[in-house]
Amino acid sequence: MTDIPYRNGLIIGAGPGISGSLTRLLRAAGIPVVVAARQVDRLAPLVEAGAVALPVDASDAGQVERLFAETEARIGAPEIVIYNASGRVRGPIAELDPAEVERAVAVSALGAFYTVQQAAKRMVPAGKGAILLTGATAGVKGFALSAPFAMGKFALRGLAQSAARELSPQGIHVAHVVVDGGVRAAHRPDPADRPDSTLDPDAVAQCYLDLLRQHRSAWSWEIEVRPWVEKF
Amino acid sequence: MTDIPYRNGLIIGAGPGISGSLTRLLRAAGIPVVVAARQVDRLAPLVEAGAVALPVDASDAGQVERLFAETEARIGAPEIVIYNASGRVRGPIAELDPAEVERAVAVSALGAFYTVQQAAKRMVPAGKGAILLTGATAGVKGFALSAPFAMGKFALRGLAQSAARELSPQGIHVAHVVVDGGVRAAHRPDPADRPDSTLDPDAVAQCYLDLLRQHRSAWSWEIEVRPWVEKF
Amino acid sequence: MTDIPYRNGLIIGAGPGISGSLTRLLRAAGIPVVVAARQVDRLAPLVEAGAVALPVDASDAGQVERLFAETEARIGAPEIVIYNASGRVRGPIAELDPAEVERAVAVSALGAFYTVQQAAKRMVPAGKGAILLTGATAGVKGFALSAPFAMGKFALRGLAQSAARELSPQGIHVAHVVVDGGVRAAHRPDPADRPDSTLDPDAVAQCYLDLLRQHRSAWSWEIEVRPWVEKF
Amino acid sequence: MTDIPYRNGLIIGAGPGISGSLTRLLRAAGIPVVVAARQVDRLAPLVEAGAVALPVDASDAGQVERLFAETEARIGAPEIVIYNASGRVRGPIAELDPAEVERAVAVSALGAFYTVQQAAKRMVPAGKGAILLTGATAGVKGFALSAPFAMGKFALRGLAQSAARELSPQGIHVAHVVVDGGVRAAHRPDPADRPDSTLDPDAVAQCYLDLLRQHRSAWSWEIEVRPWVEKF
Repeated sequence: MTDIPYRNGLIIGAGPGISGSLTRLLRAAGIPVVVAARQVDRLAPLVEAGAVALPVDASDAGQVERLFAETEARIGAPEIVIYNASGRVRGPIAELDPAEVERAVAVSALGAFYTVQQAAKRMVPAGKGAILLTGATAGVKGFALSAPFAMGKFALRGLAQSAARELSPQGIHVAHVVVDGGVRAAHRPDPADRPDSTLDPDAVAQCYLDLLRQHRSAWSWEIEVRPWVEKF
Repeated sequence: MTDIPYRNGLIIGAGPGISGSLTRLLRAAGIPVVVAARQVDRLAPLVEAGAVALPVDASDAGQVERLFAETEARIGAPEIVIYNASGRVRGPIAELDPAEVERAVAVSALGAFYTVQQAAKRMVPAGKGAILLTGATAGVKGFALSAPFAMGKFALRGLAQSAARELSPQGIHVAHVVVDGGVRAAHRPDPADRPDSTLDPDAVAQCYLDLLRQHRSAWSWEIEVRPWVEKF
Repeated sequence: MTDIPYRNGLIIGAGPGISGSLTRLLRAAGIPVVVAARQVDRLAPLVEAGAVALPVDASDAGQVERLFAETEARIGAPEIVIYNASGRVRGPIAELDPAEVERAVAVSALGAFYTVQQAAKRMVPAGKGAILLTGATAGVKGFALSAPFAMGKFALRGLAQSAARELSPQGIHVAHVVVDGGVRAAHRPDPADRPDSTLDPDAVAQCYLDLLRQHRSAWSWEIEVRPWVEKF
Repeated sequence: MTDIPYRNGLIIGAGPGISGSLTRLLRAAGIPVVVAARQVDRLAPLVEAGAVALPVDASDAGQVERLFAETEARIGAPEIVIYNASGRVRGPIAELDPAEVERAVAVSALGAFYTVQQAAKRMVPAGKGAILLTGATAGVKGFALSAPFAMGKFALRGLAQSAARELSPQGIHVAHVVVDGGVRAAHRPDPADRPDSTLDPDAVAQCYLDLLRQHRSAWSWEIEVRPWVEKF
């Protein structure tokens, strides 16, 4: 019925875009999915698509721990774990509010660590699992006026690479997806004269599925996706 | 019958490993394939799998030009073009034969350029096509005692990135696959106690297919594949 | 008397190694230096070398703010600011203490942000200054069993690149030094049969001085230093 | 009289810009210098500055070999070797002349290989020497419409990294300088409203000298230089 070699999934930092598409693709393959975010009401379309919605502030280690326990109670220990949350604050370095910078790094990077940790606690004993971390161009290029986002996304990439080196030989596939471009949304459609100039969330989700289907003899730890007309 | 959005394919530098798997996967999808290499006799299993075999020394611009013309005559202008050839000579820098170094760079990099050029001549007017270039870890890390391979594979990566920036907005998907690890073969099976510690050519070929299937709203220009237990 | 085009310096996260050498080189050039660290008693040799020592927990935004104010009162607004602090905790991801991970990232990355921010507040109006951030190999390669250090040092590198893009055109030289190897110390001398196999802190400090002396028409934002025999 | 720990130097691909500044700086330190280029007449100002000028087509292995022999006869085996030559042809991939592409790669990369090889033959037995290779942004980023330059400069970077890994532990300092920006020249002065927006060749040459002065306990294999206002 499905060739995805995992039993169930947990998506953290879920929203209507990439997470919505992932939920639909996984559900279509008959895979139970828990989606979690701070604002659970934003998850309504995902619940309609068949997901269980749970609240979490991913920047809080205790909440992430409880989310995994609750997920385990609902659908079993998740074999697919996807981290989509990110924090961002823009502006000249001299003018940023330190508390907001801390928050941005906590959401983009520390929350990913808590997530990878809870996933590893369950996947290492099982010798199986997949952890996908959603990165951004800011994780490979630090733009002006966006230092906190660069810090968080670079840290996420470092975590992903370190986790891949540690966990891959234990049977756990860790991958980092560099999402380069704006994701299409109802409020952000493509310009009429530039078709597919934004990322179709279904196309991005397909890339995640391709990763999930990879055989362990040929795993990728990083891939980027961008619209054909995106400058890079 | 197939969801690969291209009509036919040409694989250069073909051998029994990755190219063999690619041929079988493409043929299984009903896609006509020409395979080309210097030693055509090595292509016998690919011909059995349904490919047309043609001879080419990829380091010769004229031969590459004629190969494309002949391919066009046989199966039409190729919409998928894959370059797998590479040249390698190892040893201390002081002891290498300059002529062999030139040859290694010509096969790994110049041949790829001739190939991308011939592909571009046909794909740009059509506004459609995919060019996949087979790289190696040596293209992102220059190892000691292997300078010529590093030169060729770094050059290939530079070509791939430049071609992606130029051709993607014209509808042509250019991607560079970093193959990190040994490819499994009859003469190089996995050690019994290290299953899947080499790259299964079918698994690598699947990664190429995933790239071919990507929608233009979310193209990748680079991906690496390595066995789960490979150090990196 | 000196060709370093800056008036005074502040070194945060100072210890006897690289910071000690930097202090001596700057003092030898007649440049007033404030050194700051959590354990001020470790700074005694730097005070002997002519530095003013002040206490700071760099992971606390308020303390960093007060440190800059106090530094300004003592030697004027610092035109050279160097961040050497880093936090590290090692172990399998599943077994790490989240609080220690937070602390490690806070010291390696958030403290650097507070520092760059306080420096920028003073340097931007002046249109002059140099900010040097001490990185590690872990900032470009995430090693197994060292995820928190990778997160902190990757984040630092993202900050450095973003800050360089923002602040360089305002006359402020931002650079990231990738220190690759162990730093020689009284308790960690070179093996007798491997001379210069560790980083001489004076040689590292010389690299910082080279950066400080660079003319704005040819600034570097990143450089790495490693012993001649270090594997990389 | 000089703190440059090398006795003499050879600069290949020399012209009036960076090579001119290097010649003057080395000569000012009392170091004999041979400069070599295809068009020896362009070297007149360097001869005036005290260099010996010799002709070479760096893309010809035999000529490079003879250049080193002749240099050895004139000033002894060179302890500093600098490669500045590069080949470039621009245009859409489909329209480039293959022969010009081959020539560009031969000058940027193969010539550098011949040079590193001849240098290694002399430096390895001596256990001493420095090889500096002049790169470009095109060596780390492949731009559209500039595939041949990307190929040559990527290959050069691969050579530099491989050579550094091989030769550093034998006492030979190999470094790659990423020159990012236009070099100031009589015919290309700075715009009046953008001071130092081009690379001052003296400032670039100073960076090379900083590398030459590095102690083997803290060598760099790569550094980039760009004007303070250059976008990157």
